Amino acid sequence: MSTISDVARLARVSTSTVSNVLNGRTDKMSHETLGRVQQAVAELDFRPNRTARQLKTGETQLFGLLVPSMGNPSYGLLAREIERVSRECHGYRVIVANTYRDPQQERTFLDDMWSQGVRGVIVISSLADEAHFEEPVARGLVAVSYDSHARRDRAPILDYVSADNVAGASLAVQHLVAQGHRTIAFLTPSGWTFSRAEKREGFITAAKEAGVKGVIIAGSTASHYADEEMAELGQSLAQPLVQHPDKPTAAVAINDMMAIGLMTGLREQGLELPRDMSIIGMDGIPLGAYAAPPLTTIRLPLPDLARTMVDRIMLRLKEPDTVPDEFRFTSTLLERDSVAPPPRPSR
Amino acid sequence: MSTISDVARLARVSTSTVSNVLNGRTDKMSHETLGRVQQAVAELDFRPNRTARQLKTGETQLFGLLVPSMGNPSYGLLAREIERVSRECHGYRVIVANTYRDPQQERTFLDDMWSQGVRGVIVISSLADEAHFEEPVARGLVAVSYDSHARRDRAPILDYVSADNVAGASLAVQHLVAQGHRTIAFLTPSGWTFSRAEKREGFITAAKEAGVKGVIIAGSTASHYADEEMAELGQSLAQPLVQHPDKPTAAVAINDMMAIGLMTGLREQGLELPRDMSIIGMDGIPLGAYAAPPLTTIRLPLPDLARTMVDRIMLRLKEPDTVPDEFRFTSTLLERDSVAPPPRPSR
Repeated sequence: MSTISDVARLARVSTSTVSNVLNGRTDKMSHETLGRVQQAVAELDFRPNRTARQLKTGETQLFGLLVPSMGNPSYGLLAREIERVSRECHGYRVIVANTYRDPQQERTFLDDMWSQGVRGVIVISSLADEAHFEEPVARGLVAVSYDSHARRDRAPILDYVSADNVAGASLAVQHLVAQGHRTIAFLTPSGWTFSRAEKREGFITAAKEAGVKGVIIAGSTASHYADEEMAELGQSLAQPLVQHPDKPTAAVAINDMMAIGLMTGLREQGLELPRDMSIIGMDGIPLGAYAAPPLTTIRLPLPDLARTMVDRIMLRLKEPDTVPDEFRFTSTLLERDSVAPPPRPSR
Repeated sequence: MSTISDVARLARVSTSTVSNVLNGRTDKMSHETLGRVQQAVAELDFRPNRTARQLKTGETQLFGLLVPSMGNPSYGLLAREIERVSRECHGYRVIVANTYRDPQQERTFLDDMWSQGVRGVIVISSLADEAHFEEPVARGLVAVSYDSHARRDRAPILDYVSADNVAGASLAVQHLVAQGHRTIAFLTPSGWTFSRAEKREGFITAAKEAGVKGVIIAGSTASHYADEEMAELGQSLAQPLVQHPDKPTAAVAINDMMAIGLMTGLREQGLELPRDMSIIGMDGIPLGAYAAPPLTTIRLPLPDLARTMVDRIMLRLKEPDTVPDEFRFTSTLLERDSVAPPPRPSR
């Protein structure tokens, strides 16, 4: 196997010139020199030692990002935002993996990324069980968990960054109550995550406080957490919603994709929206603006969430003594056209 | 700085046991041994040489993926599929970057990824100008371009994988003609890419062959290629479509996101769909099923496209003499409910 010195010798340049070519620093190089180096590389079939530079600097500028599925538009947006902040603010690249929220997969990916030099990861998971992080963290992995929070019974081993989902669900209920709704449904997958459980809790508490009736309607799909089937699930929940004995006049969908699917299902049931049913989502994806009617939603502060996650990893990589912490952000009401007063006074 | 041998000595185990711990191979290890190694790692503040393993095997099992934006659901889906195939079939991870189709950015990312050990990349771009690939490819980078094709005047330096967009647009026109439409619009961003130009070409040719009137309506947004604003652009094209002097009764949208936005715009104009206007998209994203009405579309064979791109990179990394080639796949009509006969006979 030929070395960088062989290339330099053949091209009649210094090894640092070869190194410049290999690393794309060719701006100030004469066309002739560049050509000679390229030819030498080709002639010797030189495969540069891929990791020599990393070995020298001791840095692999890579973050890991574990998402349930990039096929879900919410996570696609979050991934884009994380990639942008990592690159623009810290010069880091992002390695992604779709985990489908499988702890076994998550663990495998963590080990895998570790062996590729990744020392900081963002995990979008919000599973209650985090046992599979213990060993990687003990080994030195710096991890931030999205949409989850620390357990009360021990010191956190991860940073936790999330929106205040209890307050978010409460905001949704208050908005519907202000429009006159007295029986409100909460639509959710039956695969519970931390954030979903929090939204349910916020919903139940807010309904109680407002003195209105809160109804939980949960459904399931082929996959436990339904991350790629959220719209499908929303569509399938239209019938149980319409046929519910308490006759809800409004529904809080656990996220925007579910709300969009629900609208399709309700139209299939012959309802006119929002006249016959008010709907509010929780997310704030741009797609909601193109629902029929455009979706009112509780919007996540996505840029703040992404920036905090990335900055925390950077900080803790630089200052390993920093203690993991918890960060919560506030969501806001984004009014569009999917909420109206109830069709008739209900009680 | 402590070494793996220091850790082994302190933990009273072999270096290969330490290595097993570092690489997550702890299944067959006693809890006690694992604990000793972890403690030694912590005590010595051991930061394993991140790249020693790569150096030894000479392999960095990473692909690069350059997408215009993961915030666009079509690219999110493709990215998920590429990640899945890379991992399941080849044990490779994927590094992503959002390029916004900027050649300067693309070039920077290619150099950047190269220096991180990436030797194979998939580029979703379909820009006509590929000059910025020449140097990285000469250096040894193996690249596949999605949705683009080789120039006729010289040997390809990339693999090209795409759908037959000419045939796809033709299929859309034929479907509308079969329903009785005689004046059909083609809606597109004015930022042309290879694939967009092909769709337009297919549209014009098919309209001519069918003896119907074809109308091109192009619009622009703040960003030249509009990848993140496709729905917004579709919405803004509703008015020029409705007010067009040739009175089109059907529209082919260049992709599904544009079709979804267009529907919103047409509803705002007071049209009932599909009664007053038939719409057909080109893409096949699951979201189309939740449009109102559910969107008829020309569906891309996404799994075939993703698999071919990944397999080509693997093949060419293993067998560098393999000549770059071009691969085209056929899209198919996916009928939902957004196409109907025209409101009245048009001529």
